[in-house]
Amino acid sequence: MSISVLRTVDAWWVSFPGGARRIDTAASTTAELIADRAAVESAATGFGDLVDPSTLALISPVTAPCRVIAQMTNYVSHVKDSGMNPDKVPLTFFRKSSGSISGPNDDIVKPPHVALLDYEVEIGLVFGQTIPVGTHVDEATLADSIAALVVTNDVSARDVQLPKTQFYEAKSYPTFTPVGPALVLLEAGEWEKFSTLTLQLRVNGVTRQNSTVADMIYKPLQTLRELNRFQRVDAGDLLLTGTPGGTALTAPPKPIEIIGALLPPHVKWKAFFRRQASNPKYLRDGDIVEATVRSGDGSIDLGTQKTVVRHA
Amino acid sequence: MSISVLRTVDAWWVSFPGGARRIDTAASTTAELIADRAAVESAATGFGDLVDPSTLALISPVTAPCRVIAQMTNYVSHVKDSGMNPDKVPLTFFRKSSGSISGPNDDIVKPPHVALLDYEVEIGLVFGQTIPVGTHVDEATLADSIAALVVTNDVSARDVQLPKTQFYEAKSYPTFTPVGPALVLLEAGEWEKFSTLTLQLRVNGVTRQNSTVADMIYKPLQTLRELNRFQRVDAGDLLLTGTPGGTALTAPPKPIEIIGALLPPHVKWKAFFRRQASNPKYLRDGDIVEATVRSGDGSIDLGTQKTVVRHA
Repeated sequence: MSISVLRTVDAWWVSFPGGARRIDTAASTTAELIADRAAVESAATGFGDLVDPSTLALISPVTAPCRVIAQMTNYVSHVKDSGMNPDKVPLTFFRKSSGSISGPNDDIVKPPHVALLDYEVEIGLVFGQTIPVGTHVDEATLADSIAALVVTNDVSARDVQLPKTQFYEAKSYPTFTPVGPALVLLEAGEWEKFSTLTLQLRVNGVTRQNSTVADMIYKPLQTLRELNRFQRVDAGDLLLTGTPGGTALTAPPKPIEIIGALLPPHVKWKAFFRRQASNPKYLRDGDIVEATVRSGDGSIDLGTQKTVVRHA
Repeated sequence: MSISVLRTVDAWWVSFPGGARRIDTAASTTAELIADRAAVESAATGFGDLVDPSTLALISPVTAPCRVIAQMTNYVSHVKDSGMNPDKVPLTFFRKSSGSISGPNDDIVKPPHVALLDYEVEIGLVFGQTIPVGTHVDEATLADSIAALVVTNDVSARDVQLPKTQFYEAKSYPTFTPVGPALVLLEAGEWEKFSTLTLQLRVNGVTRQNSTVADMIYKPLQTLRELNRFQRVDAGDLLLTGTPGGTALTAPPKPIEIIGALLPPHVKWKAFFRRQASNPKYLRDGDIVEATVRSGDGSIDLGTQKTVVRHA
């Protein structure tokens, strides 16, 4: 059975339905925690004291620095939202700064120069071992190398992202990658449950995103094979696997898009952002964002992250 | 006066017109070498044996892992080649894998799935200290934090880069960032010579790129200020500052571009790549690529890297 690990400033914890038990480990990074499986198992099966997890001040269970790699447009519903053709969208990666990682209950802080702040719930895969470029990757490699799953929010400054075309800056400001609460370590054989996961995101209690992995275009095996053509990964690295439909951003209607394609980019974006300014779905000061990932049968539960938006 | 440092598998060297002298240092990374300034100065001013630098098997003087950050479309001439408006192009960053770093005389290896292999000579800035996000950056910070300059080639798989839109993969395959030969450490007051540098790139002896920094759109001060909004840098990190015009890739004529904008992306790229297939400037098996960066008065000379293209 999977093991849910929580992280506070000075300790790691195994989380049970009835409480959390401290792990006896010297690990200071996620890679070290994953390597100290004996300590994790000991806490998971032991009889020591339990504390109420709601009393713990949780921080991200994925420690920085690490590589944060993300997939672009990887759910049919999001690709349609973006005005693209799901049958023709290429498997595409970009990088986020690991300095953007924040805790599951930390504020999401909007920098002053950003106008259009958006959310993207995603399943994060946490690697448990090094995979050098050119390694043969099959189902067994995949199950062996992905040590854990975690809830992530790929927060995006749309008015920075779209004109610059490269996503790196717009998704890398501090607090733009809330991670957690739980680092869910998978047991042998549990990887196949990945396909049963459901992602949900609510803003002020209203559901904005609600989808299953069945909507995912490039599944982890194909993704890892293509990533492996150019990027080594190490234990503790994080791969964000894309977001389903329901973000604040949606593509303009086709006729407007075709007219836009004929305009110089800066004119097109000016008009687009003028229209987006009246879109009420972008995140506002004080908005509460809750993101959840779990399997339909409840046997895998990555928990719920609850963050508040603050305008700097 | 600036000091030129070379790197072999087991040593660092100061390079003079008359030869190279081994540096007495335990440094194994570029950050450690930069920190051991006393050892570098000692070799630069000492009287020990000199060896013929042509007998040294040089590797990249920038060691991996490190952050490799790159600027998109940052020279007026390249922006025009790309069919864009230099007055309206935003300051944009993307990431490259540091696993793509190779030596100044290593082969550039084209992966089998890549068709359109292109070159981009760029000036690399090597950071000498940590700059946390949000640091006030002025001329003094800039001069203090950029420890060295280096020749780089931002090798690009155009048929991967353009359909995917995110540049990360297409520029991150192993050997896609030749670096060196020399890590040129600047003395106090020498930073201002940056604006006098000329970049040149030749393929089989024919000049393809030849430009000065005067053609650069976003200079390092503004660049560092914007980078500092979202990305911490540390000693040994590498920033590629963009390439001038003359790459194999050029934008199609305006009427074709406008028609292309109306087509679905996969149709547009298919037609574009069909035309590009007859462009003789893309790199072919056995091509010799030489890249040079130096100041007009010769007082700053980053040397010449000479690499051979191999089709895997």
